[in-house]
Amino acid sequence: MHAETSTGACQPDIAAVAEVCHRRDALLILDCVTSLGGLPVQVDAWGVDVAYGASQKCLSAPPGLAPITVSPRAEERLRTRRSPVTSFYLDLSLLDKYWSEKPTYHHTASISLAYALREALRLVEEEGLSARFARHQRNAERLWGGLEALGLSLLVPPTHRLPSLSTPVLPAGLDDAGLRRSLLQDFNIEIAGGFGPLAGKVWRIGLMGYSSRAENVITLLGALAELLKTK
Amino acid sequence: MHAETSTGACQPDIAAVAEVCHRRDALLILDCVTSLGGLPVQVDAWGVDVAYGASQKCLSAPPGLAPITVSPRAEERLRTRRSPVTSFYLDLSLLDKYWSEKPTYHHTASISLAYALREALRLVEEEGLSARFARHQRNAERLWGGLEALGLSLLVPPTHRLPSLSTPVLPAGLDDAGLRRSLLQDFNIEIAGGFGPLAGKVWRIGLMGYSSRAENVITLLGALAELLKTK
Repeated sequence: MHAETSTGACQPDIAAVAEVCHRRDALLILDCVTSLGGLPVQVDAWGVDVAYGASQKCLSAPPGLAPITVSPRAEERLRTRRSPVTSFYLDLSLLDKYWSEKPTYHHTASISLAYALREALRLVEEEGLSARFARHQRNAERLWGGLEALGLSLLVPPTHRLPSLSTPVLPAGLDDAGLRRSLLQDFNIEIAGGFGPLAGKVWRIGLMGYSSRAENVITLLGALAELLKTK
Repeated sequence: MHAETSTGACQPDIAAVAEVCHRRDALLILDCVTSLGGLPVQVDAWGVDVAYGASQKCLSAPPGLAPITVSPRAEERLRTRRSPVTSFYLDLSLLDKYWSEKPTYHHTASISLAYALREALRLVEEEGLSARFARHQRNAERLWGGLEALGLSLLVPPTHRLPSLSTPVLPAGLDDAGLRRSLLQDFNIEIAGGFGPLAGKVWRIGLMGYSSRAENVITLLGALAELLKTK
């Protein structure tokens, strides 16, 4: 996991993980769903073999597509595998043939989603990658400062903190579900509750792609300030 | 297969197939990809256990979604299966939980495609199912008559002929690829070549959903008349 959405943690040194994998002749598959388009993803420099992302998070296109890359090392492994692939849908060899110079039919591509993703990528290019990453970082820091000013600490230490998803720790005795309901009903803001062992203990606040904006952070912090006084 | 797109054949008596399946305690899974929205699909009356279609053919929504139905008999089989499902993507038990009253997360749904499908279904409702089926049949018959007038016979006998996809047999010695290229370049009409053993022997002409229109049939027949004279 490059960017882990249940904790809000970012794996800060993928190259070191890749090095360990390759020493053992293993492949590194990296989940970049919540990082692609929001923070640097350097597939080749880090030595990642397979990386996949999502259209709907930091790229801000409609959901439905998952960009994927496959390294020559992983391609070789695909070509020489002996056990059959159990999933037609995610058989990368079939997908490879589909995208080859002599295409073999695999599926009807969702062309409207592909056009939408292309437009989203054009907007990424227009903003520029480094400006985009800086914007995600700046708005996340604005959120973190504001949450701390409200007396909320953050679950993840600064060195591993994800700019696209923040996880403030809930004050003891807070009505988690009630507060999030008010946030949605009164202010039209939806934030997510904790997952699994973190349920009721943290919130999950996304600032991804188009939604990573100063006005969104300010509005949320203002609404929280009001609600925390009364709940 | 309810509607088979490599031959242009329609299975005319699904109820009889279902009856044989159920007598042997087997489930009937019906591929309705090229029939749903273009000709009657009577899942319950026929005794079909699982039926799936596609958003992009006779429903004329963007590609990317596959409507699916599961009978109580098939649900029971899903609930009591002992071998694990090898595909996360098409694990119907997980999808069932995702759509249940207490949803368990499975995937991020492609909401823009869902809205588009809803609008496509609204248009189906506005036209009315029987009017829609009659339109598909009428335009197919117009095409069949026109092709026969041009000296082309049809691969499939009338009793099994699909209104949404027609397969005229090519005259001997015809330059298949060249003619289809001219059709696309000069008239902006794309028809498909034959598949597998039918490659070079038939064309596959789709008249599905929005594209099943008198003007499309007339334009194609006019273009073919011109091109067949010169090729």
